[in-house]
Amino acid sequence: MDHMNVLWIFAHPDQRSLNGALRDEGLCALRELGHHVRESDLYAMGWNPVLDRSDFEQQPSGRLLVGAEQERAYLDGTLRADIRAEQDKLEWADAVVLHFPLWWFGPPAILKGWLDRVLAQGLGFGVKDADGRTRRYGDGGLAGKRGLVVTTVGARESSFGPRGIHGHIDDVLFPLSHATFFYTGMDALPPYVVYGADRLDAAGFAEAAHGLRERLRALPTEEPIPFRPEASGDYDEDLVLRPDIAPGRTGLAVHRRDGGPTADRLSRRVLESR
Amino acid sequence: MDHMNVLWIFAHPDQRSLNGALRDEGLCALRELGHHVRESDLYAMGWNPVLDRSDFEQQPSGRLLVGAEQERAYLDGTLRADIRAEQDKLEWADAVVLHFPLWWFGPPAILKGWLDRVLAQGLGFGVKDADGRTRRYGDGGLAGKRGLVVTTVGARESSFGPRGIHGHIDDVLFPLSHATFFYTGMDALPPYVVYGADRLDAAGFAEAAHGLRERLRALPTEEPIPFRPEASGDYDEDLVLRPDIAPGRTGLAVHRRDGGPTADRLSRRVLESR
Repeated sequence: MDHMNVLWIFAHPDQRSLNGALRDEGLCALRELGHHVRESDLYAMGWNPVLDRSDFEQQPSGRLLVGAEQERAYLDGTLRADIRAEQDKLEWADAVVLHFPLWWFGPPAILKGWLDRVLAQGLGFGVKDADGRTRRYGDGGLAGKRGLVVTTVGARESSFGPRGIHGHIDDVLFPLSHATFFYTGMDALPPYVVYGADRLDAAGFAEAAHGLRERLRALPTEEPIPFRPEASGDYDEDLVLRPDIAPGRTGLAVHRRDGGPTADRLSRRVLESR
Repeated sequence: MDHMNVLWIFAHPDQRSLNGALRDEGLCALRELGHHVRESDLYAMGWNPVLDRSDFEQQPSGRLLVGAEQERAYLDGTLRADIRAEQDKLEWADAVVLHFPLWWFGPPAILKGWLDRVLAQGLGFGVKDADGRTRRYGDGGLAGKRGLVVTTVGARESSFGPRGIHGHIDDVLFPLSHATFFYTGMDALPPYVVYGADRLDAAGFAEAAHGLRERLRALPTEEPIPFRPEASGDYDEDLVLRPDIAPGRTGLAVHRRDGGPTADRLSRRVLESR
Protein backbone atom coordinates (compact mmCIF):
# COMPACT_ATOMS: atom_id res chain seq x y z
CA MET A 1 0.00 0.00 0.00
CA ASP A 2 1.56 3.28 -1.06
CA HIS A 3 -0.78 5.86 0.36
CA MET A 4 -2.66 5.29 3.57
CA ASN A 5 -5.46 7.11 5.29
CA VAL A 6 -4.09 8.03 8.71
CA LEU A 7 -6.18 9.22 11.66
CA TRP A 8 -4.12 11.00 14.31
CA ILE A 9 -5.81 11.25 17.72
CA PHE A 10 -4.04 13.87 19.81
CA ALA A 11 -4.60 14.49 23.52
CA HIS A 12 -2.57 17.27 25.12
CA PRO A 13 -4.00 20.46 26.65
CA ASP A 14 -1.28 22.74 25.26
CA GLN A 15 -0.55 23.18 21.55
CA ARG A 16 2.84 24.67 22.44
CA SER A 17 3.92 21.60 24.38
CA LEU A 18 6.58 19.09 23.39
CA ASN A 19 3.72 16.85 22.37
CA GLY A 20 2.19 19.61 20.26
CA ALA A 21 5.50 20.03 18.44
CA LEU A 22 5.86 16.27 17.95
CA ARG A 23 2.35 16.09 16.55
CA ASP A 24 3.19 18.87 14.06
CA GLU A 25 6.27 16.91 12.98
CA GLY A 26 4.28 13.74 12.65
CA LEU A 27 1.49 15.23 10.54
CA CYS A 28 4.03 16.99 8.35
CA ALA A 29 6.00 13.78 7.83
CA LEU A 30 2.90 11.81 6.91
CA ARG A 31 1.84 14.41 4.33
CA GLU A 32 5.32 14.47 2.82
CA LEU A 33 5.10 10.70 2.48
CA GLY A 34 1.93 11.16 0.46
CA HIS A 35 -0.51 9.82 3.04
CA HIS A 36 -3.95 11.29 3.60
CA VAL A 37 -4.22 12.61 7.13
CA ARG A 38 -7.09 13.55 9.38
CA GLU A 39 -6.66 14.69 12.96
CA SER A 40 -8.83 14.54 16.05
CA ASP A 41 -7.23 17.10 18.34
CA LEU A 42 -9.38 16.18 21.32
CA TYR A 43 -8.65 19.25 23.47
CA ALA A 44 -9.08 21.63 20.53
CA MET A 45 -12.37 19.93 19.64
CA GLY A 46 -13.65 20.17 23.21
CA TRP A 47 -14.25 16.43 23.04
CA ASN A 48 -16.62 15.13 25.73
CA PRO A 49 -15.09 11.96 27.19
CA VAL A 50 -17.96 10.97 29.49
CA LEU A 51 -20.03 8.03 28.27
CA ASP A 52 -23.57 8.37 29.58
CA ARG A 53 -27.23 8.10 28.67
CA SER A 54 -27.01 11.14 26.40
CA ASP A 55 -24.73 9.17 24.02
CA PHE A 56 -27.93 7.69 22.64
CA GLU A 57 -30.33 9.77 20.59
CA GLN A 58 -33.08 7.43 21.71
CA GLN A 59 -32.31 7.24 25.39
CA PRO A 60 -33.05 3.90 27.01
CA SER A 61 -35.92 4.18 29.47
CA GLY A 62 -34.75 1.38 31.76
CA ARG A 63 -31.34 0.35 33.06
CA LEU A 64 -28.40 1.42 30.93
CA LEU A 65 -26.72 -1.77 29.70
CA VAL A 66 -23.79 -0.04 28.07
CA GLY A 67 -22.59 -2.67 25.60
CA ALA A 68 -26.02 -3.72 24.36
CA GLU A 69 -27.20 -0.13 24.08
CA GLN A 70 -24.08 0.90 22.15
CA GLU A 71 -24.57 -1.95 19.70
CA ARG A 72 -28.25 -1.17 19.13
CA ALA A 73 -27.56 2.54 18.60
CA TYR A 74 -24.50 1.90 16.42
CA LEU A 75 -26.48 -0.37 14.11
CA ASP A 76 -29.46 2.03 14.07
CA GLY A 77 -27.23 5.05 13.44
CA THR A 78 -28.56 6.72 16.57
CA LEU A 79 -25.36 7.29 18.50
CA ARG A 80 -24.87 10.99 19.15
CA ALA A 81 -23.45 13.00 16.26
CA ASP A 82 -20.05 13.65 17.90
CA ILE A 83 -19.53 9.90 18.27
CA ARG A 84 -20.67 9.10 14.74
CA ALA A 85 -18.28 11.69 13.32
CA GLU A 86 -15.34 9.97 15.04
CA GLN A 87 -16.54 6.54 13.94
CA ASP A 88 -16.66 7.79 10.35
CA LYS A 89 -13.05 8.93 10.61
CA LEU A 90 -12.08 5.59 12.14
CA GLU A 91 -13.77 3.62 9.38
CA TRP A 92 -12.01 5.79 6.80
CA ALA A 93 -8.59 5.20 8.36
CA ASP A 94 -6.03 2.54 7.40
CA ALA A 95 -3.92 3.49 10.40
CA VAL A 96 -4.70 5.12 13.74
CA VAL A 97 -2.17 6.97 15.87
CA LEU A 98 -2.97 7.52 19.55
CA HIS A 99 -0.70 10.34 20.72
CA PHE A 100 -0.65 11.48 24.34
CA PRO A 101 1.52 12.13 27.39
CA LEU A 102 1.44 9.13 29.74
CA TRP A 103 -0.56 10.19 32.82
CA TRP A 104 -0.95 7.66 35.62
CA PHE A 105 0.40 5.01 33.24
CA GLY A 106 -2.38 5.48 30.72
CA PRO A 107 -3.94 7.96 28.34
CA PRO A 108 -5.39 11.24 29.67
CA ALA A 109 -9.11 11.02 30.48
CA ILE A 110 -10.07 12.88 27.30
CA LEU A 111 -8.52 10.09 25.21
CA LYS A 112 -9.74 7.27 27.45
CA GLY A 113 -13.22 8.62 26.85
CA TRP A 114 -12.68 8.60 23.09
CA LEU A 115 -12.09 4.84 23.40
CA ASP A 116 -15.05 4.39 25.75
CA ARG A 117 -17.51 6.20 23.48
CA VAL A 118 -16.24 5.68 19.91
CA LEU A 119 -15.14 2.02 20.00
CA ALA A 120 -18.73 0.94 20.53
CA GLN A 121 -19.88 -2.64 20.79
CA GLY A 122 -20.88 -3.63 17.28
CA LEU A 123 -18.11 -1.53 15.75
CA GLY A 124 -14.93 -2.24 17.69
CA PHE A 125 -15.93 -5.44 19.44
CA GLY A 126 -18.72 -7.96 19.80
CA VAL A 127 -18.73 -8.43 16.01
CA LYS A 128 -19.55 -12.00 14.97
CA ASP A 129 -18.44 -14.02 11.95
CA ALA A 130 -20.67 -16.13 9.69
CA ASP A 131 -20.47 -19.04 12.15
CA GLY A 132 -21.65 -16.91 15.06
CA ARG A 133 -18.24 -16.74 16.71
CA THR A 134 -17.12 -13.44 18.17
CA ARG A 135 -14.31 -11.93 16.12
CA ARG A 136 -11.71 -10.87 18.63
CA TYR A 137 -7.92 -10.66 19.14
CA GLY A 138 -6.45 -10.53 15.67
CA ASP A 139 -9.86 -10.26 14.05
CA GLY A 140 -12.80 -7.95 14.62
CA GLY A 141 -14.57 -4.85 13.41
CA LEU A 142 -11.32 -2.98 12.80
CA ALA A 143 -9.36 -5.79 11.11
CA GLY A 144 -6.94 -4.61 8.44
CA LYS A 145 -6.09 -1.35 10.19
CA ARG A 146 -2.83 -0.60 11.96
CA GLY A 147 -2.48 1.08 15.35
CA LEU A 148 0.45 3.05 16.75
CA VAL A 149 0.87 4.57 20.21
CA VAL A 150 3.05 7.68 20.42
CA THR A 151 3.66 8.77 23.99
CA THR A 152 5.97 10.79 26.22
CA VAL A 153 7.05 10.05 29.77
CA GLY A 154 9.15 12.00 32.24
CA ALA A 155 11.03 8.96 33.50
CA ARG A 156 14.25 7.48 32.20
CA GLU A 157 14.12 4.59 29.73
CA SER A 158 15.78 2.18 32.16
CA SER A 159 12.94 2.57 34.65
CA PHE A 160 10.47 1.37 31.99
CA GLY A 161 12.75 -1.47 30.86
CA PRO A 162 12.00 -5.18 31.27
CA ARG A 163 12.96 -5.04 34.96
CA GLY A 164 12.43 -1.31 35.54
CA ILE A 165 10.49 -0.20 38.60
CA HIS A 166 7.57 1.24 36.61
CA GLY A 167 7.00 -2.02 34.76
CA HIS A 168 8.14 -2.80 31.23
CA ILE A 169 6.67 -0.25 28.83
CA ASP A 170 5.28 -3.10 26.70
CA ASP A 171 3.31 -4.32 29.72
CA VAL A 172 2.24 -0.82 30.75
CA LEU A 173 0.86 -0.20 27.25
CA PHE A 174 -0.70 -3.68 26.93
CA PRO A 175 -4.23 -2.28 27.56
CA LEU A 176 -3.83 -0.24 24.36
CA SER A 177 -1.71 -2.51 22.18
CA HIS A 178 -3.30 -5.86 23.01
CA ALA A 179 -6.63 -5.11 24.66
CA THR A 180 -7.63 -2.27 22.33
CA PHE A 181 -5.81 -2.50 18.98
CA PHE A 182 -5.39 -6.26 18.73
CA TYR A 183 -8.70 -7.03 20.45
CA THR A 184 -10.59 -5.13 17.75
CA GLY A 185 -8.61 -6.81 14.98
CA MET A 186 -6.02 -4.10 14.39
CA ASP A 187 -2.32 -4.76 13.94
CA ALA A 188 -0.55 -3.19 16.92
CA LEU A 189 2.78 -1.64 16.00
CA PRO A 190 5.50 -1.31 18.65
CA PRO A 191 4.89 1.93 20.57
CA TYR A 192 6.99 5.03 20.00
CA VAL A 193 8.03 6.34 23.40
CA VAL A 194 9.96 9.52 24.21
CA TYR A 195 11.62 9.25 27.63
CA GLY A 196 12.85 12.07 29.87
CA ALA A 197 10.30 14.28 28.15
CA ASP A 198 10.27 16.99 30.81
CA ARG A 199 14.02 17.52 30.50
CA LEU A 200 14.40 17.41 26.70
CA ASP A 201 16.70 20.06 25.18
CA ALA A 202 16.78 21.11 21.51
CA ALA A 203 19.06 18.22 20.53
CA GLY A 204 16.85 15.81 22.41
CA PHE A 205 13.78 17.12 20.64
CA ALA A 206 15.48 16.84 17.26
CA GLU A 207 16.32 13.23 18.03
CA ALA A 208 12.77 12.49 19.16
CA ALA A 209 11.33 14.13 16.05
CA HIS A 210 13.74 12.24 13.80
CA GLY A 211 12.84 8.95 15.45
CA LEU A 212 9.16 9.67 14.96
CA ARG A 213 9.69 10.45 11.28
CA GLU A 214 11.53 7.15 10.82
CA ARG A 215 8.72 5.23 12.49
CA LEU A 216 6.10 6.97 10.35
CA ARG A 217 8.08 6.17 7.21
CA ALA A 218 7.73 2.50 8.17
CA LEU A 219 4.04 2.82 9.05
CA PRO A 220 2.71 0.79 6.08
CA THR A 221 5.29 -1.98 6.30
CA GLU A 222 6.56 -2.34 9.87
CA GLU A 223 6.05 -5.73 11.49
CA PRO A 224 3.33 -5.54 14.15
CA ILE A 225 3.77 -6.96 17.64
CA PRO A 226 3.35 -10.73 17.15
CA PHE A 227 0.39 -11.24 19.48
CA ARG A 228 -1.33 -14.61 19.34
CA PRO A 229 -4.63 -14.48 17.44
CA GLU A 230 -7.56 -16.05 19.26
CA ALA A 231 -8.24 -18.11 16.13
CA SER A 232 -4.69 -19.52 16.17
CA GLY A 233 -5.72 -22.37 18.45
CA ASP A 234 -3.21 -21.28 21.08
CA TYR A 235 -6.06 -20.77 23.60
CA ASP A 236 -8.47 -23.39 24.90
CA GLU A 237 -12.25 -23.05 25.21
CA ASP A 238 -11.83 -21.18 28.51
CA LEU A 239 -9.64 -18.65 26.67
CA VAL A 240 -6.59 -19.88 28.57
CA LEU A 241 -3.25 -20.45 26.83
CA ARG A 242 -2.84 -24.18 26.18
CA PRO A 243 -0.32 -25.86 28.50
CA ASP A 244 2.07 -26.70 25.66
CA ILE A 245 2.32 -23.04 24.60
CA ALA A 246 5.03 -21.15 26.54
CA PRO A 247 4.78 -23.91 29.15
CA GLY A 248 4.84 -22.85 32.79
CA ARG A 249 5.26 -19.18 31.91
CA THR A 250 3.08 -16.28 33.00
CA GLY A 251 3.24 -12.53 32.46
CA LEU A 252 1.74 -10.52 29.63
CA ALA A 253 4.55 -11.44 27.21
CA VAL A 254 3.18 -15.00 26.95
CA HIS A 255 0.56 -13.56 24.60
CA ARG A 256 3.30 -12.79 22.08
CA ARG A 257 4.46 -15.51 19.76
CA ASP A 258 8.07 -14.43 20.30
CA GLY A 259 7.65 -14.37 24.08
CA GLY A 260 8.75 -10.74 24.01
CA PRO A 261 12.04 -9.72 22.43
CA THR A 262 13.35 -8.62 25.77
CA ALA A 263 12.63 -11.84 27.57
CA ASP A 264 14.66 -13.64 24.90
CA ARG A 265 17.53 -11.23 25.29
CA LEU A 266 17.40 -11.59 29.04
CA SER A 267 17.33 -15.37 29.07
CA ARG A 268 20.20 -15.47 26.58
CA ARG A 269 22.16 -13.28 28.94
CA VAL A 270 21.30 -15.48 31.87
CA LEU A 271 22.31 -18.59 29.93
CA GLU A 272 25.59 -17.02 28.84
CA SER A 273 26.46 -16.06 32.40
CA ARG A 274 26.10 -19.63 33.67
CA MET B 1 -7.55 0.76 63.91
CA ASP B 2 -11.18 0.17 64.72
CA HIS B 3 -12.91 2.87 62.74
CA MET B 4 -11.56 4.12 59.46
CA ASN B 5 -12.43 7.04 57.26
CA VAL B 6 -13.31 5.52 53.91
CA LEU B 7 -13.62 7.45 50.63
CA TRP B 8 -15.61 5.55 47.98
CA ILE B 9 -15.08 6.80 44.43
CA PHE B 10 -17.84 5.48 42.20
CA ALA B 11 -17.94 5.70 38.41
CA HIS B 12 -20.96 4.21 36.69
CA PRO B 13 -23.52 6.17 34.63
CA ASP B 14 -26.54 4.29 35.99
CA GLN B 15 -27.51 4.16 39.66
CA ARG B 16 -29.74 1.16 38.92
CA SER B 17 -26.86 -0.89 37.49
CA LEU B 18 -25.23 -3.92 39.05
CA ASN B 19 -22.44 -1.59 40.07
CA GLY B 20 -24.92 0.82 41.65
CA ALA B 21 -26.36 -2.02 43.70
CA LEU B 22 -22.88 -3.24 44.71
CA ARG B 23 -21.95 0.28 45.75
CA ASP B 24 -25.08 0.46 47.95
CA GLU B 25 -24.09 -2.84 49.57
CA GLY B 26 -20.56 -1.63 50.10
CA LEU B 27 -21.49 1.66 51.73
CA CYS B 28 -24.05 -0.08 53.91
CA ALA B 29 -21.52 -2.70 55.03
CA LEU B 30 -18.92 -0.07 55.88
CA ARG B 31 -21.41 1.92 58.00
CA GLU B 32 -22.49 -1.24 59.82
CA LEU B 33 -18.85 -1.89 60.63
CA GLY B 34 -18.68 1.53 62.25
CA HIS B 35 -16.51 3.24 59.63
CA HIS B 36 -17.00 6.82 58.56
CA VAL B 37 -17.84 6.96 54.87
CA ARG B 38 -17.79 9.67 52.24
CA GLU B 39 -18.64 9.07 48.61
CA SER B 40 -17.63 10.72 45.36
CA ASP B 41 -20.28 9.52 42.93
CA LEU B 42 -18.55 10.99 39.91
CA TYR B 43 -21.48 10.76 37.48
CA ALA B 44 -23.95 12.12 40.03
CA MET B 45 -21.55 14.99 40.80
CA GLY B 46 -21.12 15.82 37.12
CA TRP B 47 -17.37 15.52 37.70
CA ASN B 48 -15.25 17.13 34.99
CA PRO B 49 -12.44 14.71 34.09
CA VAL B 50 -10.53 16.93 31.66
CA LEU B 51 -7.29 18.37 33.05
CA ASP B 52 -6.60 21.69 31.35
CA ARG B 53 -5.50 25.26 31.94
CA SER B 54 -8.69 26.08 33.81
CA ASP B 55 -7.62 23.70 36.63
CA PHE B 56 -5.51 26.60 37.87
CA GLU B 57 -7.10 29.68 39.41
CA GLN B 58 -4.03 31.61 38.32
CA GLN B 59 -3.68 30.35 34.79
CA PRO B 60 -0.12 30.03 33.53
CA SER B 61 0.59 32.55 30.78
CA GLY B 62 3.21 30.44 29.00
CA ARG B 63 3.44 26.75 28.18
CA LEU B 64 1.44 24.47 30.43
CA LEU B 65 3.97 22.24 32.21
CA VAL B 66 1.39 20.05 33.89
CA GLY B 67 3.37 18.56 36.79
CA ALA B 68 5.15 21.76 37.82
CA GLU B 69 1.97 23.80 37.52
CA GLN B 70 -0.01 21.30 39.59
CA GLU B 71 2.61 21.39 42.33
CA ARG B 72 2.73 25.18 42.44
CA ALA B 73 -1.05 25.48 42.54
CA TYR B 74 -1.43 22.68 45.09
CA LEU B 75 1.04 24.33 47.46
CA ASP B 76 -0.52 27.78 46.89
CA GLY B 77 -4.06 26.44 47.37
CA THR B 78 -5.02 27.74 43.93
CA LEU B 79 -6.19 24.55 42.26
CA ARG B 80 -9.80 24.91 41.20
CA ALA B 81 -12.39 24.37 43.94
CA ASP B 82 -13.72 21.06 42.57
CA ILE B 83 -10.20 19.60 42.73
CA ARG B 84 -9.50 20.96 46.20
CA ALA B 85 -12.74 19.46 47.51
CA GLU B 86 -11.67 16.00 46.31
CA GLN B 87 -8.17 16.46 47.72
CA ASP B 88 -9.69 17.33 51.08
CA LYS B 89 -11.69 14.09 51.03
CA LEU B 90 -8.57 12.17 50.05
CA GLU B 91 -6.52 13.66 52.86
CA TRP B 92 -9.32 12.83 55.30
CA ALA B 93 -9.47 9.19 54.17
CA ASP B 94 -7.67 6.22 55.70
CA ALA B 95 -8.82 4.04 52.82
CA VAL B 96 -9.86 4.76 49.24
CA VAL B 97 -12.08 2.50 47.14
CA LEU B 98 -12.04 2.94 43.36
CA HIS B 99 -15.23 1.30 42.09
CA PHE B 100 -15.97 1.07 38.38
CA PRO B 101 -16.86 -1.25 35.50
CA LEU B 102 -13.71 -2.20 33.55
CA TRP B 103 -13.91 -0.42 30.18
CA TRP B 104 -11.10 -1.01 27.70
CA PHE B 105 -9.14 -2.65 30.52
CA GLY B 106 -9.13 0.45 32.67
CA PRO B 107 -11.35 2.87 34.54
CA PRO B 108 -14.00 4.89 32.67
CA ALA B 109 -12.76 8.31 31.55
CA ILE B 110 -14.61 10.09 34.35
CA LEU B 111 -12.54 8.19 36.92
CA LYS B 112 -9.30 8.39 34.96
CA GLY B 113 -9.74 12.15 35.03
CA TRP B 114 -10.24 12.09 38.79
CA LEU B 115 -6.75 10.57 39.03
CA ASP B 116 -5.32 13.02 36.47
CA ARG B 117 -6.67 16.11 38.25
CA VAL B 118 -6.84 15.21 41.95
CA LEU B 119 -3.59 13.26 42.44
CA ALA B 120 -1.57 16.37 41.71
CA GLN B 121 2.18 16.58 41.79
CA GLY B 122 3.05 17.75 45.30
CA LEU B 123 0.17 15.79 46.80
CA GLY B 124 0.23 12.32 45.30
CA PHE B 125 3.73 12.26 43.88
CA GLY B 126 6.90 14.30 43.57
CA VAL B 127 6.99 14.67 47.37
CA LYS B 128 10.53 14.71 48.78
CA ASP B 129 11.89 13.53 52.12
CA ALA B 130 14.26 15.43 54.42
CA ASP B 131 17.26 14.23 52.38
CA GLY B 132 15.78 15.52 49.12
CA ARG B 133 14.92 12.07 47.78
CA THR B 134 11.60 11.64 46.03
CA ARG B 135 9.23 9.54 48.15
CA ARG B 136 7.79 6.97 45.79
CA TYR B 137 6.67 3.33 45.63
CA GLY B 138 5.83 2.38 49.18
CA ASP B 139 6.28 5.94 50.40
CA GLY B 140 4.86 9.26 49.25
CA GLY B 141 2.23 11.85 49.89
CA LEU B 142 -0.47 9.27 50.57
CA ALA B 143 1.55 6.91 52.79
CA GLY B 144 -0.46 5.20 55.50
CA LYS B 145 -3.64 4.97 53.45
CA ARG B 146 -5.03 1.77 51.92
CA GLY B 147 -6.38 1.44 48.39
CA LEU B 148 -8.89 -1.09 47.04
CA VAL B 149 -10.12 -1.56 43.47
CA VAL B 150 -13.66 -2.92 43.08
CA THR B 151 -14.50 -3.70 39.48
CA THR B 152 -16.83 -5.70 37.26
CA VAL B 153 -16.03 -7.38 33.95
CA GLY B 154 -18.20 -9.23 31.48
CA ALA B 155 -15.64 -11.94 30.80
CA ARG B 156 -15.17 -15.23 32.59
CA GLU B 157 -12.60 -15.50 35.38
CA SER B 158 -10.46 -17.99 33.45
CA SER B 159 -9.87 -15.47 30.67
CA PHE B 160 -8.33 -13.06 33.20
CA GLY B 161 -6.31 -15.78 34.91
CA PRO B 162 -2.50 -16.02 34.89
CA ARG B 163 -2.53 -17.40 31.32
CA GLY B 164 -5.92 -16.05 30.23
CA ILE B 165 -6.20 -14.28 26.88
CA HIS B 166 -7.03 -10.89 28.38
CA GLY B 167 -3.93 -10.90 30.56
CA HIS B 168 -3.80 -11.72 34.25
CA ILE B 169 -6.12 -9.39 36.15
CA ASP B 170 -3.24 -8.46 38.50
CA ASP B 171 -1.25 -7.27 35.47
CA VAL B 172 -4.24 -5.52 33.90
CA LEU B 173 -4.84 -3.59 37.14
CA PHE B 174 -1.12 -2.89 37.74
CA PRO B 175 -1.50 0.76 36.60
CA LEU B 176 -3.88 1.28 39.54
CA SER B 177 -2.46 -1.04 42.20
CA HIS B 178 1.27 -0.43 41.64
CA ALA B 179 1.55 2.75 39.59
CA THR B 180 -1.16 4.70 41.43
CA PHE B 181 -1.73 3.31 44.93
CA PHE B 182 1.75 2.02 45.70
CA TYR B 183 3.51 4.81 43.78
CA THR B 184 1.90 7.43 46.03
CA GLY B 185 2.74 5.45 49.17
CA MET B 186 -0.59 3.70 49.66
CA ASP B 187 -0.94 0.02 50.56
CA ALA B 188 -2.62 -1.66 47.57
CA LEU B 189 -5.06 -4.36 48.60
CA PRO B 190 -5.80 -7.25 46.23
CA PRO B 191 -8.57 -6.10 43.86
CA TYR B 192 -12.15 -7.31 44.24
CA VAL B 193 -13.35 -8.41 40.81
CA VAL B 194 -16.82 -9.60 39.80
CA TYR B 195 -16.64 -11.69 36.62
CA GLY B 196 -19.45 -12.48 34.18
CA ALA B 197 -21.09 -9.26 35.35
CA ASP B 198 -23.42 -8.91 32.37
CA ARG B 199 -24.92 -12.36 32.99
CA LEU B 200 -25.30 -12.28 36.78
CA ASP B 201 -28.58 -13.67 38.16
CA ALA B 202 -29.99 -13.03 41.64
CA ALA B 203 -27.90 -15.79 43.20
CA GLY B 204 -24.81 -14.48 41.44
CA PHE B 205 -25.46 -10.99 42.71
CA ALA B 206 -25.98 -12.26 46.26
CA GLU B 207 -22.64 -14.04 46.04
CA ALA B 208 -20.89 -10.95 44.67
CA ALA B 209 -22.41 -8.77 47.39
CA HIS B 210 -21.44 -11.26 50.09
CA GLY B 211 -17.88 -11.40 48.78
CA LEU B 212 -17.67 -7.62 48.81
CA ARG B 213 -18.93 -7.48 52.41
CA GLU B 214 -16.27 -9.99 53.45
CA ARG B 215 -13.55 -7.97 51.79
CA LEU B 216 -14.76 -4.76 53.41
CA ARG B 217 -14.82 -6.45 56.81
CA ALA B 218 -11.10 -7.13 56.31
CA LEU B 219 -10.35 -3.62 55.04
CA PRO B 220 -8.36 -2.45 58.09
CA THR B 221 -6.34 -5.64 58.48
CA GLU B 222 -5.96 -7.40 55.12
CA GLU B 223 -2.40 -7.94 53.90
CA PRO B 224 -1.62 -5.61 50.99
CA ILE B 225 -0.02 -6.83 47.77
CA PRO B 226 3.66 -7.27 48.71
CA PHE B 227 5.14 -4.84 46.17
CA ARG B 228 8.81 -3.99 46.58
CA PRO B 229 9.34 -0.54 48.10
CA GLU B 230 11.78 1.67 46.22
CA ALA B 231 13.64 2.22 49.51
CA SER B 232 14.10 -1.55 49.98
CA GLY B 233 17.33 -1.54 48.00
CA ASP B 234 15.89 -4.03 45.51
CA TYR B 235 16.37 -1.48 42.69
CA ASP B 236 19.63 0.04 41.49
CA GLU B 237 20.30 3.71 40.76
CA ASP B 238 18.73 3.35 37.30
CA LEU B 239 15.55 2.08 39.01
CA VAL B 240 16.14 -1.40 37.61
CA LEU B 241 15.66 -4.52 39.72
CA ARG B 242 19.09 -5.74 40.87
CA PRO B 243 20.28 -8.87 39.05
CA ASP B 244 20.18 -11.01 42.20
CA ILE B 245 16.50 -10.21 42.81
CA ALA B 246 14.18 -12.60 40.92
CA PRO B 247 17.17 -13.37 38.68
CA GLY B 248 16.45 -13.63 34.95
CA ARG B 249 12.74 -13.03 35.41
CA THR B 250 10.64 -10.38 33.74
CA GLY B 251 6.93 -9.54 33.81
CA LEU B 252 5.10 -7.26 36.20
CA ALA B 253 5.03 -9.88 38.98
CA VAL B 254 8.78 -9.39 39.55
CA HIS B 255 7.83 -6.22 41.43
CA ARG B 256 6.14 -8.34 44.09
CA ARG B 257 8.24 -9.83 46.84
CA ASP B 258 6.34 -13.10 46.53
CA GLY B 259 6.72 -13.16 42.74
CA GLY B 260 2.96 -13.35 42.46
CA PRO B 261 0.97 -16.05 44.24
CA THR B 262 -0.12 -17.48 40.92
CA ALA B 263 3.36 -17.86 39.54
CA ASP B 264 4.24 -19.90 42.61
CA ARG B 265 1.21 -22.11 42.15
CA LEU B 266 1.96 -22.55 38.49
CA SER B 267 5.60 -23.45 38.97
CA ARG B 268 4.63 -25.93 41.68
CA ARG B 269 2.24 -27.52 39.23
CA VAL B 270 4.89 -27.62 36.54
CA LEU B 271 7.38 -29.18 38.97
CA GLU B 272 4.85 -31.78 40.13
CA SER B 273 4.07 -32.81 36.58
CA ARG B 274 7.70 -33.57 35.81
